[in-house]
Amino acid sequence: MEMLSCHLNRSSDVPLYEQLYDYIKNEIIEGRIEHGSKLPSKRKLSEYLKISQNTVETAYDQLLAEGYAEGIPRKGYYVLAYEDLEYVQPKDTPSAEKVEAREKMKYHFHPSWIDTENFPFAKWRKYAKNMIDKEHHSLLLLGDMQGEAELRQEIAHYLYHARGVQCSPDEVIIGAGSEILLQQLILLFQKETVYGVEDPGYHMISRILKNYANDVYPLGVDEEGLKVKQIENTNIDVVYVTPSHHFPYGSVLSVNRRIQLLKWARGSKKRYIIEDDYDSEFRYSGKSIPSLQSMDQSGKVIYLGSFSKSLIPSLRISYMVLPKELLQRYKQELSFYQCTVSRLDQHILARFMREGDFERHLNRMRKIYRKKLDKTLELIKPYNDKVEVIGEQSGLHIVLVVKNGMSEEELVEKASLAGIQIYPLSSYSLEKRLKKTPMMILGFAGIPEADLEHAIRMLFRSWEMV
Amino acid sequence: MEMLSCHLNRSSDVPLYEQLYDYIKNEIIEGRIEHGSKLPSKRKLSEYLKISQNTVETAYDQLLAEGYAEGIPRKGYYVLAYEDLEYVQPKDTPSAEKVEAREKMKYHFHPSWIDTENFPFAKWRKYAKNMIDKEHHSLLLLGDMQGEAELRQEIAHYLYHARGVQCSPDEVIIGAGSEILLQQLILLFQKETVYGVEDPGYHMISRILKNYANDVYPLGVDEEGLKVKQIENTNIDVVYVTPSHHFPYGSVLSVNRRIQLLKWARGSKKRYIIEDDYDSEFRYSGKSIPSLQSMDQSGKVIYLGSFSKSLIPSLRISYMVLPKELLQRYKQELSFYQCTVSRLDQHILARFMREGDFERHLNRMRKIYRKKLDKTLELIKPYNDKVEVIGEQSGLHIVLVVKNGMSEEELVEKASLAGIQIYPLSSYSLEKRLKKTPMMILGFAGIPEADLEHAIRMLFRSWEMV
Repeated sequence: MEMLSCHLNRSSDVPLYEQLYDYIKNEIIEGRIEHGSKLPSKRKLSEYLKISQNTVETAYDQLLAEGYAEGIPRKGYYVLAYEDLEYVQPKDTPSAEKVEAREKMKYHFHPSWIDTENFPFAKWRKYAKNMIDKEHHSLLLLGDMQGEAELRQEIAHYLYHARGVQCSPDEVIIGAGSEILLQQLILLFQKETVYGVEDPGYHMISRILKNYANDVYPLGVDEEGLKVKQIENTNIDVVYVTPSHHFPYGSVLSVNRRIQLLKWARGSKKRYIIEDDYDSEFRYSGKSIPSLQSMDQSGKVIYLGSFSKSLIPSLRISYMVLPKELLQRYKQELSFYQCTVSRLDQHILARFMREGDFERHLNRMRKIYRKKLDKTLELIKPYNDKVEVIGEQSGLHIVLVVKNGMSEEELVEKASLAGIQIYPLSSYSLEKRLKKTPMMILGFAGIPEADLEHAIRMLFRSWEMV
Repeated sequence: MEMLSCHLNRSSDVPLYEQLYDYIKNEIIEGRIEHGSKLPSKRKLSEYLKISQNTVETAYDQLLAEGYAEGIPRKGYYVLAYEDLEYVQPKDTPSAEKVEAREKMKYHFHPSWIDTENFPFAKWRKYAKNMIDKEHHSLLLLGDMQGEAELRQEIAHYLYHARGVQCSPDEVIIGAGSEILLQQLILLFQKETVYGVEDPGYHMISRILKNYANDVYPLGVDEEGLKVKQIENTNIDVVYVTPSHHFPYGSVLSVNRRIQLLKWARGSKKRYIIEDDYDSEFRYSGKSIPSLQSMDQSGKVIYLGSFSKSLIPSLRISYMVLPKELLQRYKQELSFYQCTVSRLDQHILARFMREGDFERHLNRMRKIYRKKLDKTLELIKPYNDKVEVIGEQSGLHIVLVVKNGMSEEELVEKASLAGIQIYPLSSYSLEKRLKKTPMMILGFAGIPEADLEHAIRMLFRSWEMV
């Protein structure tokens, strides 16, 4: 090749080498510089274009790096042959697509919602400020795969005192949500494992299980919790259960059934129980229900806990406590998974717990939620010919059995038209079985206390009960 | 039953109702109160024990809640029959097990380590402080499943300008690490999907794939990157590749092979390419290598990116850009997965990017890493009869071909004895094939500049080269 007649714009923001690189690359792509041809020497081209040899070298290096040319020692730079896919320059900036706004509902009775107004922002901010500091720079690097030792220690301590869960910090594994932990658990079980889940129950759980497992059996629930007897004539290996506070019914798994369940699990090496203790912190009368794990003598219970209800849903911190055998398997097979929670966040939370702020927060929130629940029940009372309440002992939601003649669908739709979001029980049912009398989940935690009256009145008006 | 001779300790910290509940529960468990027997009425027991009826009621309610007794309207409380599993009270506090201390090595040449001393803590702290505020209380609730719109917008903007990646914020999905995103991706592909991975390569990726997929094929790599021709006679459906900077060799996938790869992908509906652009921000000569995604006209490239190298590994924020067809499938099948990254963290990062701090940080770190790399190469130069360097164009690590006669194992062990952590290439090889001449990965980013000389001298001394 003779020379490259490249026009360089010296007043452009684009560096000269980049202009030259772009020019040559395009010439190659468009076929105006033939494959196999030799590029001008750096010295010649720099003289011709009146730029430094360095600039030419940088442009050539880039072409080399991307594979458009090759350098042959003592010979020069040659254009490489390349395959003829239509190769187009990037188009213009993508149109900044309108980001979907969250549906603008006035009141959300979603069971995952918590009270956000009474969160101790000042304390959390203080601990965050302390933690985000040069002094802790090593926390920027990857940490312990199971989660930070400091946080696991706090969790183990809390679990023992609040839930009777017996574990050492080494048995605790921290993850960004129960879903993530469940996915790890699934990997610890064999591929043919058959799961049993409460129905109705957490739909998230059954959907995740269904993504991996062949068989997921729905198991019925009544006022004593999961109907354990149903398991006995199945080939279920692992049962997912919410013993302290069934989601969404709110029933407690009775001692009798707990014992049946533990006995069943002991019947085979493959059997395990996943105990999801998602909101046991909020029980409003008496003391909290002991965890199933605390009754287990045979290493058959996997304990799942979360800070979603007790602290912040969007923080995404959950944990599981593995029985010995599974822990061993975890360490052998899965300990290469990086912990999914930010280390700084883990340390902020550990500090929050160590200083007693978590306990104070729980005590305070228990009172606030209790007040919200009492008020909710009081507001519903006048309508008790048309609305029956289930599960009012604990947690952040209740179940309404609505007997105004409307179907579940109608109830949801009417509420929605009034700007109120509320979910039917059937949306938590694996088999989408509709009850004869429609049931609705009423998460009261997210509604400010001052708005409760208005929210419930609006809801009942939309249901034509007022 | 006559009466319950329970001794209550009025000066104890344990509430009276709890002492009573504990007493009765134990009597039931130990068989001293028979199943089916009636408990004393609340009035009688309160008179007998000289406590309030309320206290008795609370104790009874707890027994009811846990299923030890049942209340029969107008009759009283009856002890329920329960199965006879030995049921033991929780043991003492678990011994606070010694938390394993991280191996105390003096120098870590781990390729995942970054420079932690030059992180802009003050800026990050400022944005965190602003974000952790009552004003943003709604951020405590769960957010968008794909990740916060604000952050996705910043990522899309950054990707277009820095990497030529064409995407709208709607196509970006945020997750707590590439492993998490990869697990979601796997769910979008069919179960029989066959994967191809670079070998050597990121062992994490192949291990995750192996957990889910039947077949994972190792594919060779040379100085032009992945040997694409190898794919053609296989039944591989999805290829995982690091085109901008092969891990760990550091080679760039040439234009020729890029085109071959894109062509291959167009050959069948099932075929896809996963482009992991893990550290493309750090290229020290010329401009950065364009992403493969920017050359793709057929929606066949899934772009994977992360803030682990460019910002903080322990923050656990990664993202993927899905082509249209997969995005649609994702929205239909997987959008019930909660985003795994803390919302507050997402907003802090979005602010950091919006204000230009991310770009400033990258520019600054590029200079710092370049200096560290130059110094490293300079320190190695005198030994170039025994050590050859590969992949010194970019990234946070180089590869050393060590020709001092020692085996990989010896090299690792000798270094370890001198307090230096360094990894052999074979630990990133799926087939654990050992090269004739041992290769070691030298991650230079995490060593403070002032220590580099000492660290490398110590390393070479341990290898008996000094």
